[in-house]
Amino acid sequence: MKSVKLNPVGSMSLLSQYEVDRLMHSTTSELYQLARNCCLAVLNSGAEIDNPEEIFKPYEDFDIRILQKERGIKIELTNPPELAFVDDVLIRGAHEHLFAVIRDLLHMSAKYDMGAKTANDSGHITHMVFDMLRNAEVFKPENDPNMVVCWGGHSINDVEYQYTKKVGYELGLREMNICTGCGPGAMKGPMKGATIGHAKQRYRNGRYLGVTEPGIIAAEPPNAIVNELVIMPDIEKRLEAFVRLAQGIVIFPGGAGTAEELLYLLGIMLNEQNKHQCLPLVLTGPEESRAYFESIDEFVGATLGPQAQSLYTIVVGDAAAAARKIKEQQSKLLEYRRATGDSYHFNWSLKIESEFQAPFYPSHENVAGLDLHFEQPVSALAANLRRAFSAIVAGNVKAEGLREIRKNGKYQINGDPKIMAMLDDLLRSFVEQQRMKLPGSAYNPCYEVVR
Amino acid sequence: MKSVKLNPVGSMSLLSQYEVDRLMHSTTSELYQLARNCCLAVLNSGAEIDNPEEIFKPYEDFDIRILQKERGIKIELTNPPELAFVDDVLIRGAHEHLFAVIRDLLHMSAKYDMGAKTANDSGHITHMVFDMLRNAEVFKPENDPNMVVCWGGHSINDVEYQYTKKVGYELGLREMNICTGCGPGAMKGPMKGATIGHAKQRYRNGRYLGVTEPGIIAAEPPNAIVNELVIMPDIEKRLEAFVRLAQGIVIFPGGAGTAEELLYLLGIMLNEQNKHQCLPLVLTGPEESRAYFESIDEFVGATLGPQAQSLYTIVVGDAAAAARKIKEQQSKLLEYRRATGDSYHFNWSLKIESEFQAPFYPSHENVAGLDLHFEQPVSALAANLRRAFSAIVAGNVKAEGLREIRKNGKYQINGDPKIMAMLDDLLRSFVEQQRMKLPGSAYNPCYEVVR
Amino acid sequence: MKSVKLNPVGSMSLLSQYEVDRLMHSTTSELYQLARNCCLAVLNSGAEIDNPEEIFKPYEDFDIRILQKERGIKIELTNPPELAFVDDVLIRGAHEHLFAVIRDLLHMSAKYDMGAKTANDSGHITHMVFDMLRNAEVFKPENDPNMVVCWGGHSINDVEYQYTKKVGYELGLREMNICTGCGPGAMKGPMKGATIGHAKQRYRNGRYLGVTEPGIIAAEPPNAIVNELVIMPDIEKRLEAFVRLAQGIVIFPGGAGTAEELLYLLGIMLNEQNKHQCLPLVLTGPEESRAYFESIDEFVGATLGPQAQSLYTIVVGDAAAAARKIKEQQSKLLEYRRATGDSYHFNWSLKIESEFQAPFYPSHENVAGLDLHFEQPVSALAANLRRAFSAIVAGNVKAEGLREIRKNGKYQINGDPKIMAMLDDLLRSFVEQQRMKLPGSAYNPCYEVVR
Amino acid sequence: MKSVKLNPVGSMSLLSQYEVDRLMHSTTSELYQLARNCCLAVLNSGAEIDNPEEIFKPYEDFDIRILQKERGIKIELTNPPELAFVDDVLIRGAHEHLFAVIRDLLHMSAKYDMGAKTANDSGHITHMVFDMLRNAEVFKPENDPNMVVCWGGHSINDVEYQYTKKVGYELGLREMNICTGCGPGAMKGPMKGATIGHAKQRYRNGRYLGVTEPGIIAAEPPNAIVNELVIMPDIEKRLEAFVRLAQGIVIFPGGAGTAEELLYLLGIMLNEQNKHQCLPLVLTGPEESRAYFESIDEFVGATLGPQAQSLYTIVVGDAAAAARKIKEQQSKLLEYRRATGDSYHFNWSLKIESEFQAPFYPSHENVAGLDLHFEQPVSALAANLRRAFSAIVAGNVKAEGLREIRKNGKYQINGDPKIMAMLDDLLRSFVEQQRMKLPGSAYNPCYEVVR
Repeated sequence: MKSVKLNPVGSMSLLSQYEVDRLMHSTTSELYQLARNCCLAVLNSGAEIDNPEEIFKPYEDFDIRILQKERGIKIELTNPPELAFVDDVLIRGAHEHLFAVIRDLLHMSAKYDMGAKTANDSGHITHMVFDMLRNAEVFKPENDPNMVVCWGGHSINDVEYQYTKKVGYELGLREMNICTGCGPGAMKGPMKGATIGHAKQRYRNGRYLGVTEPGIIAAEPPNAIVNELVIMPDIEKRLEAFVRLAQGIVIFPGGAGTAEELLYLLGIMLNEQNKHQCLPLVLTGPEESRAYFESIDEFVGATLGPQAQSLYTIVVGDAAAAARKIKEQQSKLLEYRRATGDSYHFNWSLKIESEFQAPFYPSHENVAGLDLHFEQPVSALAANLRRAFSAIVAGNVKAEGLREIRKNGKYQINGDPKIMAMLDDLLRSFVEQQRMKLPGSAYNPCYEVVR
Repeated sequence: MKSVKLNPVGSMSLLSQYEVDRLMHSTTSELYQLARNCCLAVLNSGAEIDNPEEIFKPYEDFDIRILQKERGIKIELTNPPELAFVDDVLIRGAHEHLFAVIRDLLHMSAKYDMGAKTANDSGHITHMVFDMLRNAEVFKPENDPNMVVCWGGHSINDVEYQYTKKVGYELGLREMNICTGCGPGAMKGPMKGATIGHAKQRYRNGRYLGVTEPGIIAAEPPNAIVNELVIMPDIEKRLEAFVRLAQGIVIFPGGAGTAEELLYLLGIMLNEQNKHQCLPLVLTGPEESRAYFESIDEFVGATLGPQAQSLYTIVVGDAAAAARKIKEQQSKLLEYRRATGDSYHFNWSLKIESEFQAPFYPSHENVAGLDLHFEQPVSALAANLRRAFSAIVAGNVKAEGLREIRKNGKYQINGDPKIMAMLDDLLRSFVEQQRMKLPGSAYNPCYEVVR
Repeated sequence: MKSVKLNPVGSMSLLSQYEVDRLMHSTTSELYQLARNCCLAVLNSGAEIDNPEEIFKPYEDFDIRILQKERGIKIELTNPPELAFVDDVLIRGAHEHLFAVIRDLLHMSAKYDMGAKTANDSGHITHMVFDMLRNAEVFKPENDPNMVVCWGGHSINDVEYQYTKKVGYELGLREMNICTGCGPGAMKGPMKGATIGHAKQRYRNGRYLGVTEPGIIAAEPPNAIVNELVIMPDIEKRLEAFVRLAQGIVIFPGGAGTAEELLYLLGIMLNEQNKHQCLPLVLTGPEESRAYFESIDEFVGATLGPQAQSLYTIVVGDAAAAARKIKEQQSKLLEYRRATGDSYHFNWSLKIESEFQAPFYPSHENVAGLDLHFEQPVSALAANLRRAFSAIVAGNVKAEGLREIRKNGKYQINGDPKIMAMLDDLLRSFVEQQRMKLPGSAYNPCYEVVR
Repeated sequence: MKSVKLNPVGSMSLLSQYEVDRLMHSTTSELYQLARNCCLAVLNSGAEIDNPEEIFKPYEDFDIRILQKERGIKIELTNPPELAFVDDVLIRGAHEHLFAVIRDLLHMSAKYDMGAKTANDSGHITHMVFDMLRNAEVFKPENDPNMVVCWGGHSINDVEYQYTKKVGYELGLREMNICTGCGPGAMKGPMKGATIGHAKQRYRNGRYLGVTEPGIIAAEPPNAIVNELVIMPDIEKRLEAFVRLAQGIVIFPGGAGTAEELLYLLGIMLNEQNKHQCLPLVLTGPEESRAYFESIDEFVGATLGPQAQSLYTIVVGDAAAAARKIKEQQSKLLEYRRATGDSYHFNWSLKIESEFQAPFYPSHENVAGLDLHFEQPVSALAANLRRAFSAIVAGNVKAEGLREIRKNGKYQINGDPKIMAMLDDLLRSFVEQQRMKLPGSAYNPCYEVVR
């Protein structure tokens, strides 16, 4: 039995006995289980598996304990995966991630009841999002704001992956920082690229921010380059964190998760109250991915209309141009924030309606009940389409979704025939391009589009 | 009308709209009033007044507001006292204190209901003490622990004051840090002295920690040298903070407040469960104050016995020896903490009974009801004597005590005649030596010892 | 005409008027020309050319001036190459390199006469090497020593290049720093890899040290990742800097320059006085390069014998093992230094004979006169073989060598027939594997081995 | 025999063997003796003696050696004075001073021949001054310039001393730094005061710069608060350093040395080429010293005229006003430097004629030959008066001066009868006010004014 004791890092070294008790009191408590699994996910980063049930199987005897010592707490790991160790020493990046997990779960549990994660009040939800990020010390008010959120698939081909590195490199050369959802593929490439760009610019405090949530962290664990990690309570608060943190968003090729993110964002930006907001949005990929963006653009045009299309720029095969596009709009963005007295680091004035904040549980009933017709405001249609893709992500790689599918079969997605036809085509192309799951396993769709 | 806008310092720059609303919503709210008064106290530091009712009179048009801006909040002061400004710029130390006030009041109110400040559970109270200190970033786990708590009167004569500076200097030369209760006199001298000692040792992160509470801050405001300020919810949590933080305690000559602190500490250390604790305690003053320490020592001997006397060392007229006494015991102290797995920076294992944690409100009824007889454990007698002195401090310099006295006349302190006689003598000597109030005003006792 | 003004970085901001005059007095002075050309080389980094005469042709109107300003000097560039700019802003790395060039040329010229670069006294030469490095602030006595010198070709194939990145990554994960001779290929790969390894370990002060000299900087300019750059006076002092700085040496596949470096090192280590020295030396490359190392090993065995072979370990196709090999010997190395009272950061006790310190000018006469026979100590033979390879490097990529070749034809290398045969084979294999020059141009040998 | 080994601090840790040999080769060498004596002076700081011959007597067995170790050099002290130790550990300030001494003596000896300290060329002397300061890392080009030079007596009364602390405090509150000539009295007070002012302003990098020279360091050793120490080669270069570094000069009451400094400065500022220079100059002291400034002002008026008087402001009894006077003129000073392209940190454009740069050796012949008549330009008269006071300082407290006096009797100062009368009065008042030597010893004048 292997045992490793870890010193604390960051702000986590001092816990009160009261807090240690709450976290560790019983190895059967929900909080303990959540902490154990998130820690395991972090340690297992680099394993090329995205099935959460398989991921954890080899590590049933893995355990985690918190010890109190004279200089603060220590974490003791029993039988940790070997992956995160170099010559028997835990990589410092993974080491920090463990303490980030403990920090965020403790804060969530101290402040917000874990069972009933939601408050009904939209303002209070935004406060929770802010409070989680602040507690994780994500805000650096003394720094210029320059956080670029990169979205894209965890399963992309090598040409696309190299391209995401190039965009990250060009962003890094322009002293922009990178925020992604953690995980491999389009969420790792920009960070690696930015590391080199930052090194050349002697930009010593380059930030590689990973924002995740307990449900996805196992399938998309943080790469060790991630030097700031935040675990948000659920997917909706994670999405809200992305858009309020971003000084620009880059979307690379991806699958259902990427589509979910795009629709979430478009739905919010289409809100009348956000029409003066400035948020640079670039969709970009290598020349080889041109067709992918054409089909996405077509889908958006046909469902949400040209106004939605006007919210983004598509850049194909020119990493420097993509980065320049984001950089160019910074002064306008800052001016808007200054004029409205809004924070540079957290976009308070962006209006996010409750429909985008309320958690969507991917039950078969909820999926079947989604209103996917044209007779509603485009932002409402965007919200519902977002939920459809969210369910598919859950059915693909999240534990709760996999359970539902095993029990009740495929999700049945139905709605306006024209929308269904387009949706079906889009999803089919994702499957063909192997964007749904990591290559190696044949993809068995978790949904049926009822046409 | 003069108005000053202040940028945030420390960890306080980012508040959520939710928090700003709570603090500033109504200028009549209790939280707002508390914040305004504490801020005024901080700005008025240096004024040689210790009557809280007189202190605030000239500043009735003083106001404070929080503004939200692109880089975080700002504080706007209207008609602030001139005292803390140099050529119209606020001294940085006072500037930081303002934000410390806001930080601590917000944290108290967010976590703990301000009206009902207490929890009944002793463990939870200790957690609150820890949590307030941690939120104020008092713990520096990476540093060696070396915090020396200095207690003593705010009203001492110049020979004594120069001596407190010398002791501070000798502690600073030995790279010890200083924690006091803020205010002038024995709480300022050691910090000034340590500043010079630290400068000579190139000890760049010298810490001058002030721990206060809303009731005393006006009478004993933090000197600008205080570079870490914490406002605890009440006097008992403040005392608990002192003893759990301390790696050594130095007691200089003082009045009722100093006696309160000594009795509090002796009461705790006399607890059977604390008999292995190591906490160096030195009573020290210049040659001219020898008589003062003799009468204190005699009083302790007669009321609490020789075991209590064995807990401290009296050093007269030798500042270097006093500092060396503290320094010498550090390795023993650290070894004890290491052996018991206790934190270097917060003495969790020190047992503090509820009677030392429960707030004591200085009503006439409570004072009259104090059990001041020998027929009880010495630690209980110490606790009750502590409360008697606490009431006298309140009657001397706290707003709530002054109100009680005005309404109901002098406190009536009664008990065992022998104890009463000694108490009367001791208090009389404090009055004669002008230790009760700042010189200039004739002292009118707020109590009568019923003999 | 484009003009760029640059603020100083590092220790270079304050020059006296006296120094500025010396450097800039006349645009025809030798010092000015050297500075201009080195600056141009630095700015042109990334251009895939290694012919120094062609490199500078497009930039005949490039100029550099030093201006004195209120906060120190500025450098003004006229018509600089575009390569080092991002959106019209000079990459910070290149910016720093410019000031490193000025710093080192000034220091050389102030301390050592540029024309007569050499002192005869071996001890004084070593002092010069030390003094140049110290002035460049290369020594960080507070840090643990961990500088790994990586040698290898500037022209290597992609499989080899990817492998050098992997070795750099594995060294970075083990918190070793990288020192190379600047330039592309095997001198850039380890630095890029180490950047990622360091990022994962949060090793914030990763060092990527480039050591070059005026004659080679144009052909092998520093990549912008190089965050410390030193220009040594000549090739021999550069080699001495490498071996005295190194806590380990990794040799990747390369051409004549790499062979020169290996022979230089073996010649020194074979010195009887160095037999107790500990200097880990690993020759490593991907599986595909196995044959390369076999031929090198065979050549060393046949010319210098098995003792020379015992000085290195060959690791094929296992980057982590190569890094581990270096890391493992650190404690032994440090222990030796401690025992002999030698510096951790500069190996004073390593004996380097004058024959390895004296500059070798690659005239045809000097090359033809080299003693390449067996009848001499192996360390002397190593020294002479080193000179032969040094001449070939000059004839390939250095301005002075190219001039000699144009004037007098190919170098004639002669000596013992057995040595000549082996040498011929080895060189031929370098040519076939395109290790002599960057691909794209047909390689026309600058030498003939007289068999 | 007590022996202490010291780790290096600052930039001094790495010396080459060559340099260690030069410094330590022979304990009889001039450089070794100079280093030993300066180190002894530094360690003996705090001793209230200003007679260099007596100071060193008790420490004849004191010795200093340099050891080379794995992390750089160490200094070994044998039988050091106890004064600079706290509980057997050397005060860090004194520790740093030792290494500053070694650093500066080595740099002097490496760059400038110690015997013939002067170059004839005025520009080259200024380069030497700059180069010594730069090597000592006095210039912080990234910081705003704010160095206030404070001159005044080492022997002043307590009222004056407290006043110098107050001025230092007020300068510190205004974030100005302090430079003095080291030593007690008016050279220590402003630094202590500024330490408290800086602490209140959280001005963490407060600079307390001491500029001295080998001849005076024993009589006026650096107080441990001095956190940057420079040993200049001689008194003239030290004076030049003061005036080129200063962004303002404050002159407190003092004796012959202070008069020397004032005359030096006035002589330079009266130069026609300096008429546009901006250099705030304030003469200040407590109310009790009013008469002192009146006699100084009268002397200047009568000898150098009203133009000289217009160069300074006299502020009596108002420390805040004195500090404000300096602070107010900063923007004008910076503007002048910017307009002329001159450095903020070293006033290159100030014209200093050779007569102010050439060392003046205080032989009886030189003193007797001084031209102290009105028939010369006022700046020349100022230069000669400066030399007269310089000789008196030497005769009072410097080893070389004391030797001359012992051998040849008192200096004979002669010149214009009117000047002689005023000079005699002024010197007499210095003697009466005990400004010539530390109190305790009767002052026996080293000069006679021939009237």
